[in-house]
Amino acid sequence: MTDLNPTTTIRILTTGGTIEKSYCEAEGTLKNRASIIRDGLIAALRLPYTRLELESVLNKDSLEMDDGDRRQIADAIARTAEQGEPIVVLHGTDTMSDTADYCFGKLGTPAVPVVFTGAMKPMGFIDSDARQNVIEALLAARLMPPGFYIAFHNRVLPIPGARKNRETGTFEAVAAKP
Amino acid sequence: MTDLNPTTTIRILTTGGTIEKSYCEAEGTLKNRASIIRDGLIAALRLPYTRLELESVLNKDSLEMDDGDRRQIADAIARTAEQGEPIVVLHGTDTMSDTADYCFGKLGTPAVPVVFTGAMKPMGFIDSDARQNVIEALLAARLMPPGFYIAFHNRVLPIPGARKNRETGTFEAVAAKP
Amino acid sequence: MTDLNPTTTIRILTTGGTIEKSYCEAEGTLKNRASIIRDGLIAALRLPYTRLELESVLNKDSLEMDDGDRRQIADAIARTAEQGEPIVVLHGTDTMSDTADYCFGKLGTPAVPVVFTGAMKPMGFIDSDARQNVIEALLAARLMPPGFYIAFHNRVLPIPGARKNRETGTFEAVAAKP
Amino acid sequence: MTDLNPTTTIRILTTGGTIEKSYCEAEGTLKNRASIIRDGLIAALRLPYTRLELESVLNKDSLEMDDGDRRQIADAIARTAEQGEPIVVLHGTDTMSDTADYCFGKLGTPAVPVVFTGAMKPMGFIDSDARQNVIEALLAARLMPPGFYIAFHNRVLPIPGARKNRETGTFEAVAAKP
Repeated sequence: MTDLNPTTTIRILTTGGTIEKSYCEAEGTLKNRASIIRDGLIAALRLPYTRLELESVLNKDSLEMDDGDRRQIADAIARTAEQGEPIVVLHGTDTMSDTADYCFGKLGTPAVPVVFTGAMKPMGFIDSDARQNVIEALLAARLMPPGFYIAFHNRVLPIPGARKNRETGTFEAVAAKP
Repeated sequence: MTDLNPTTTIRILTTGGTIEKSYCEAEGTLKNRASIIRDGLIAALRLPYTRLELESVLNKDSLEMDDGDRRQIADAIARTAEQGEPIVVLHGTDTMSDTADYCFGKLGTPAVPVVFTGAMKPMGFIDSDARQNVIEALLAARLMPPGFYIAFHNRVLPIPGARKNRETGTFEAVAAKP
Repeated sequence: MTDLNPTTTIRILTTGGTIEKSYCEAEGTLKNRASIIRDGLIAALRLPYTRLELESVLNKDSLEMDDGDRRQIADAIARTAEQGEPIVVLHGTDTMSDTADYCFGKLGTPAVPVVFTGAMKPMGFIDSDARQNVIEALLAARLMPPGFYIAFHNRVLPIPGARKNRETGTFEAVAAKP
Repeated sequence: MTDLNPTTTIRILTTGGTIEKSYCEAEGTLKNRASIIRDGLIAALRLPYTRLELESVLNKDSLEMDDGDRRQIADAIARTAEQGEPIVVLHGTDTMSDTADYCFGKLGTPAVPVVFTGAMKPMGFIDSDARQNVIEALLAARLMPPGFYIAFHNRVLPIPGARKNRETGTFEAVAAKP
């Protein structure tokens, strides 16, 4: 008999980015240090039939990522996808679509949905969009068919075909390059 | 040429329920009064390509709803669905699945996705699940095919086939009655 | 040699009131149950040189308090004051000044500052005044000479001589009865 | 006849500091820009008998302040104190006691209470101490006799005689230099 209410595992790969920047009171600096999403955001969500598995791949501002970093992220996605469960990737917004495009170029369509998200404002701020984007990414990870996506501000954009609009501070669909 | 970034309208029908109960300091009571979701929750979301249209149908604790109320909700859904845009219905959790089942029984599969949601704790509380559930319902309204659903706690359950579990305070899938 | 930075103990007596009403999701009710101030408010304050000792005297809506309850509160204050450290009393606003007047009538000027406070909105709400009032009461407990006071909304009012203004939802100074 | 409930004006001079650093999403930087305390903190307080008058003197990280800046702050305090109403000064913590000592050295005991405060974490963060410190400073401004003070973390320290403890991230009393 089918279990109508199975617990679904979603695997979260963290790479840094604005969403996970934290403030050090001694230094007075806002930077990517260790991943803070578990206590800083996930603990406040209600996920009775969802189990989250976190893995920290990198802790970098995405402006500082190079192709070696992107390869590392693609490798982590490839390895994680083998477990057959949906994946959410936390990433800086500035080069999120570059990394997503790179992963698509390297891996093609993955065996599971791989949903990138991040935030315009670090999750520690009262008015951060991190909580909204993570909630959306976690739901998109359950609802979308296998493929790469960016979930952001009430939209799920397929990859390739998304770019950050720096003027408006959000992601938009663009014509995918042939 | 196709607009790659159209603004999508989502129509929110409010009916009351725990999610919209507000506290009156003069009376010391927590009750359904006018709808509070616009200032109390939606204002804090980032929705650059989404336009929300709100309509207040009822302001009731769902334990006090009768078939006349359910008919009124079904009528509002039928009328609103004609505009061809996805619908979110805010509703008390105690009889949410009854109302959703009633609407499905009366309307069959609607022309648009109709996503019910609500909350275990009123939206004014720091640790309310209202924000999470509304964010999920707004995304489900964009992603799901036409039909009735309940979006709650990182799941989207098809109607008929969902019930509140009073022990655990969430919704679960159940075998739809034949 | 004097320790320039001693740790000060402040003793908090909780009696219930709106400030400590909590929401039960199973029942859908907002009531005085156990004291919630430790996790719900104090944990978020920075008190490097202050130690708080909590004692729960009652858990009642102050509209339901009778003279037996007031005697119990006065007894708790008298007993606690013997330890020579300032006292904060959490109390419902509706009869806060009655209880404070009663305690003053029974105990006269105490050996330590005794600062009553409460809130117009329960501490679990995002826009509650509980945090502000408690922060003020804790500072008044350090700064005021021995006596009874109500700390509320950026004021510290001596007892006797304070009343709740039900129209405006705050406390005001009144001419003390001769 | 005396008005038992006069409205008290408190004059807030802002100079920048961590407390008022704000995040720019386009730049990804956390800096002192315009003063943000009105919308970012004061709007959420209940101050029925208090009127706040804000004046922006500087918008600087206090590590970058020099004696010219301190002179400007002392001049603003001297000019403002002439109006006979208590003053709160928002200032970075790193050199707050230097500025306060400087002002005391230049102005001696002022005609009104002048209460410096700030925060270890910018006010936009969920777990900032800004709200606590500002609430304390506003109450100290009402309760203390004329003089210079630092209000921080449930204490009001007289000036001269206070220093930031960088290890513990708070202010402490120190023996005032002769």
